[in-house]
Amino acid sequence: MDERVREHARTLVNWSARIERGDYVVVNVGEDAHDLGVAVAEELGNVGATMFVTYGSGEMLRAYLKNHDGDFEDVAGPELAAYQNADSVLFLGGGRNTTELADVRSEVRQAYNRATNEAREARMDTDWVSTVHPTRSLAQQAGMAFAEYKDFVYNAVLRDWESLAEEMAQMKEILDEGSEVRLVKEDTDLTMSIEGRIAVNSGASVAYDSHNLPSGEVFTAPYDTEGTVYFDVPMTLNGKRVRDVHLTFEDGEVTDFSAGQNEAVLEEILNTDVGARRLGELGIGMNRGIDRFTDSILFDEKMGDTVHLAVGRAYDSNLPEGEEGNKSAVHVDMITDMSEDSRIEVDGEVVQRNGVFRWEDGFEG
Amino acid sequence: MDERVREHARTLVNWSARIERGDYVVVNVGEDAHDLGVAVAEELGNVGATMFVTYGSGEMLRAYLKNHDGDFEDVAGPELAAYQNADSVLFLGGGRNTTELADVRSEVRQAYNRATNEAREARMDTDWVSTVHPTRSLAQQAGMAFAEYKDFVYNAVLRDWESLAEEMAQMKEILDEGSEVRLVKEDTDLTMSIEGRIAVNSGASVAYDSHNLPSGEVFTAPYDTEGTVYFDVPMTLNGKRVRDVHLTFEDGEVTDFSAGQNEAVLEEILNTDVGARRLGELGIGMNRGIDRFTDSILFDEKMGDTVHLAVGRAYDSNLPEGEEGNKSAVHVDMITDMSEDSRIEVDGEVVQRNGVFRWEDGFEG
Repeated sequence: MDERVREHARTLVNWSARIERGDYVVVNVGEDAHDLGVAVAEELGNVGATMFVTYGSGEMLRAYLKNHDGDFEDVAGPELAAYQNADSVLFLGGGRNTTELADVRSEVRQAYNRATNEAREARMDTDWVSTVHPTRSLAQQAGMAFAEYKDFVYNAVLRDWESLAEEMAQMKEILDEGSEVRLVKEDTDLTMSIEGRIAVNSGASVAYDSHNLPSGEVFTAPYDTEGTVYFDVPMTLNGKRVRDVHLTFEDGEVTDFSAGQNEAVLEEILNTDVGARRLGELGIGMNRGIDRFTDSILFDEKMGDTVHLAVGRAYDSNLPEGEEGNKSAVHVDMITDMSEDSRIEVDGEVVQRNGVFRWEDGFEG
Repeated sequence: MDERVREHARTLVNWSARIERGDYVVVNVGEDAHDLGVAVAEELGNVGATMFVTYGSGEMLRAYLKNHDGDFEDVAGPELAAYQNADSVLFLGGGRNTTELADVRSEVRQAYNRATNEAREARMDTDWVSTVHPTRSLAQQAGMAFAEYKDFVYNAVLRDWESLAEEMAQMKEILDEGSEVRLVKEDTDLTMSIEGRIAVNSGASVAYDSHNLPSGEVFTAPYDTEGTVYFDVPMTLNGKRVRDVHLTFEDGEVTDFSAGQNEAVLEEILNTDVGARRLGELGIGMNRGIDRFTDSILFDEKMGDTVHLAVGRAYDSNLPEGEEGNKSAVHVDMITDMSEDSRIEVDGEVVQRNGVFRWEDGFEG
């Protein structure tokens, strides 16, 4: 076994999920994530936690949904009970085909999602962590050779998380103390309020309220957005490639939009509900181990020198007690590259210019 | 996909487990049983049952146990909760290596088995069914080519179960009404009482209190065993090959024994406790789709024209209300071939001679 698989497992169990002796752990193993599953099992044995293994199979889910009439009753049962009795749920993603659900009717998929929502919420109440094992299918999605993609994944995952979390703490402090964020780059001049909101230092650990490995972003929940923004990073939304999105905000709401490809997908998302036209998240990517876009939101949104904005639902972790953030059935991230001819300002002061933070060598304020 | 995989899934879901719309079903998929998993998912979708998929990985279990110190606390948690909320649990066996746990210390394995006993019992309280998907590993265990082994498995599994169950009902009636069974063959003249005991028509369906697919045996719980018996079918007990077992019974108890290979394993089993020297089961194999021994008890004990006897624990299903059967920590099946120079008598009447039942053409009474 590639020794990096074991390091990945140790990082996941110890740094990310903070698993301790006696913890009840559910491990969900993707179709091609078996090797990471074995390494995680070793580490759970080491720690003395318990292990209950579930199987995340896109092919089984497709087969089930394709043959179901779509009239789901409460389907939670054993799955809900398992999560309600778990301390941690570890998702080892890594399937054999990222488009395996392509021919499942979207009504059936949506009905199934609604029927399984209670189980999903119970899972979110645990110390859950999502990660991926590099598979050929994900390499293909990224347009990379398999060996090259493995290097990419481990470079993103096997960081010095403690020191990255310390660096991100500086950005969290700036956002926590700041009132207004401004983004400036090509076709972009956007301001938004962050007054009173709490930034999350997403240090790839449940100890930071961060549930992704890799992580490496600081995010908050903006509002009262004004201006225009251009997302130059392509993305896959609802299974379709969407490029070159432009949004215009007035009084916090999207009033104009366009996309260079599959604009209808963007329109459908923005028309979901009222909250789908407002921002739910501003995230600043700070993981420089991620050095390219791979068409996977788990990695893309954490890439160093990027900013992502999500239309839709805000996260509770960004909201002070008693405050209601933006509500929506959707949360859709879109990414813009901030490495060139760009700046992030907070309350009029430049925090990052051309991909260099103000605490870094080479910063030109 | 081999159409027989789909037929296997339909037999499992509909005939064996009798799954109905809305049932909560846990599906445990072995490492190489993915294809059967997909076919079962199709059928569960068809029926409109729910599906929660777990992963039965010998490699993960080994990795966990090898690294654990063996001091297990209650490890049931999420797994116990899942079974307690399930109507059916379907085991799709089929791993990559039948000896994957060979280097796990037996104390650790036993401690783990004790710690997981509550979950196992909760699972047995559901309408569980065990089956296997033919894998290369199982073909190798059977000493067969992979394609040949697939033919063997589907021949055993894809029977006309309804008509086999009808035939087995005749044997059940004979055993239910009978008082004493006698087995006669080479080195064998054994009598045992079955008075008052209830025979189970194991028709590969929970509707018959039968939890194996394939099945095809009628079994009861004998007592007061006297005489000698020779088991000429080799078997693997505790990971070791055991051949040519001879047992002598006096007053219901084994008083003498020998084995042609690994006798120490047999001795260890017989010394487990008092009940381990008494019979817990007499089973009559009636599945003629199983035409050879493959070193797998799931198949071997159901083979047509064989009889198996188990030392140790009797099954509750064979005991009338309030009656205590033989108790033991073990239940170890041993098989003898009844196809030649042999007979089964019930109350002095020949029921089977040389592998021909008395209701069959060619029977010589």
